[in-house]
Amino acid sequence: MKKVVGIIGGMGPLATVDLMNKIILYTPAKKDQDHLHIIVDNYSQIPDRTTAILGNGTDPTPFIIQSAQRLESAGADFLAIACNTAHFYFQSIKDSVNIPILHMPLETASYLQDNSIKKVGLLATDGTINTKLYQHSCKTYEVEVFEPHMKMQKDVMEGIYAIKGGDLEKGLLYLSKVANNLITRGAEAIIAGCTEIPLVLKSTQSIRVIDPTEILAKSIINKASGLRKKAHSENKY
Amino acid sequence: MKKVVGIIGGMGPLATVDLMNKIILYTPAKKDQDHLHIIVDNYSQIPDRTTAILGNGTDPTPFIIQSAQRLESAGADFLAIACNTAHFYFQSIKDSVNIPILHMPLETASYLQDNSIKKVGLLATDGTINTKLYQHSCKTYEVEVFEPHMKMQKDVMEGIYAIKGGDLEKGLLYLSKVANNLITRGAEAIIAGCTEIPLVLKSTQSIRVIDPTEILAKSIINKASGLRKKAHSENKY
Repeated sequence: MKKVVGIIGGMGPLATVDLMNKIILYTPAKKDQDHLHIIVDNYSQIPDRTTAILGNGTDPTPFIIQSAQRLESAGADFLAIACNTAHFYFQSIKDSVNIPILHMPLETASYLQDNSIKKVGLLATDGTINTKLYQHSCKTYEVEVFEPHMKMQKDVMEGIYAIKGGDLEKGLLYLSKVANNLITRGAEAIIAGCTEIPLVLKSTQSIRVIDPTEILAKSIINKASGLRKKAHSENKY
Repeated sequence: MKKVVGIIGGMGPLATVDLMNKIILYTPAKKDQDHLHIIVDNYSQIPDRTTAILGNGTDPTPFIIQSAQRLESAGADFLAIACNTAHFYFQSIKDSVNIPILHMPLETASYLQDNSIKKVGLLATDGTINTKLYQHSCKTYEVEVFEPHMKMQKDVMEGIYAIKGGDLEKGLLYLSKVANNLITRGAEAIIAGCTEIPLVLKSTQSIRVIDPTEILAKSIINKASGLRKKAHSENKY
């Protein structure tokens, strides 16, 4: 009997759909019934995470906890969060429920270690960079993180906003420039630490792109199928 | 305050993702918080509907009812079902909860009437055709339905299986042939009554394609936003 998955979503809604899509894509299935039972709470009303972290907005914690508890009551056996930045509130969410929660940055860092990647570049929003979520997670798995230099980080934000605005070509131009710079500095791969980035930046012969949503999707499938009793992130958090 | 949407899903999982995508796409939104609160129960374990209707499989009704009640308990204000064939069990599902449920075929038929379409062709699986779901719904709104002739219906099934198998070109070939035949017989538009069909068959100058998932998505948005107190299908069912 496979476990029931609960997804805290809506941050934003398209990132939630992307995670669902990837879970379905990577599940070995020949018919509907082979797929996982997933309960998704697309709770878009959760206040903006980045604004709150920068000290200017409503605290999203009680909203995210509400979502976690709603999914637990509905029958979820474990949870995942379809948003990088929301992991800043991980401890409070974890304390509010009696079921495990997968930690996307820790799952990503564990994947890097499993694949012998010791130095990784990080492309993410200012918010995610500032929370040090990926830096701390990678440290746990002895992976060194290269952040873009300050001027380059501005290019990352330009690139992300270009994608959000629909200009994928401009987005790719900005992001690949920074990715190449991180590779030149010694990074063996690039974490696409914001859900917009993998939409344009794909792995090539010269850049290996790591997509945390894809890694989380695979961890969810393994955990739900009982292929791994405890997820990597549960052992470390 | 917008209403909370509950979606009975997993029949199949990709059709559920398609409905979510369309709701997000058509919601007027400038930021995450403008989007709807949607709780999705992707309950893939619901037994196959077509097999059950043809008399050879487990009755899916108790499973679908379980899903409806799970969503009601989780806080959904109204429900929608992301599967054409599952509407065969509509009355039992409706009787099992205290919240309204939108009826995709009735919403579609109401849309046809609103757009002065009096004759429509139906492309759907043998299962959906046999249940007469669209035929009855269209009758309620005084729309005449043209079904493919028996040999042509085999082509529809060939086309749908080709798409499921990834051969979109072959799928389009089969389906457009039947669609054109229905147009020749007098249909003013074609209902894409199976979630695979709109993936290849798009509206052109000679064929107007009606996508029930898109119509349901828009009805959900209107109902959740209070733009319509009662959905068309609630008045008729």
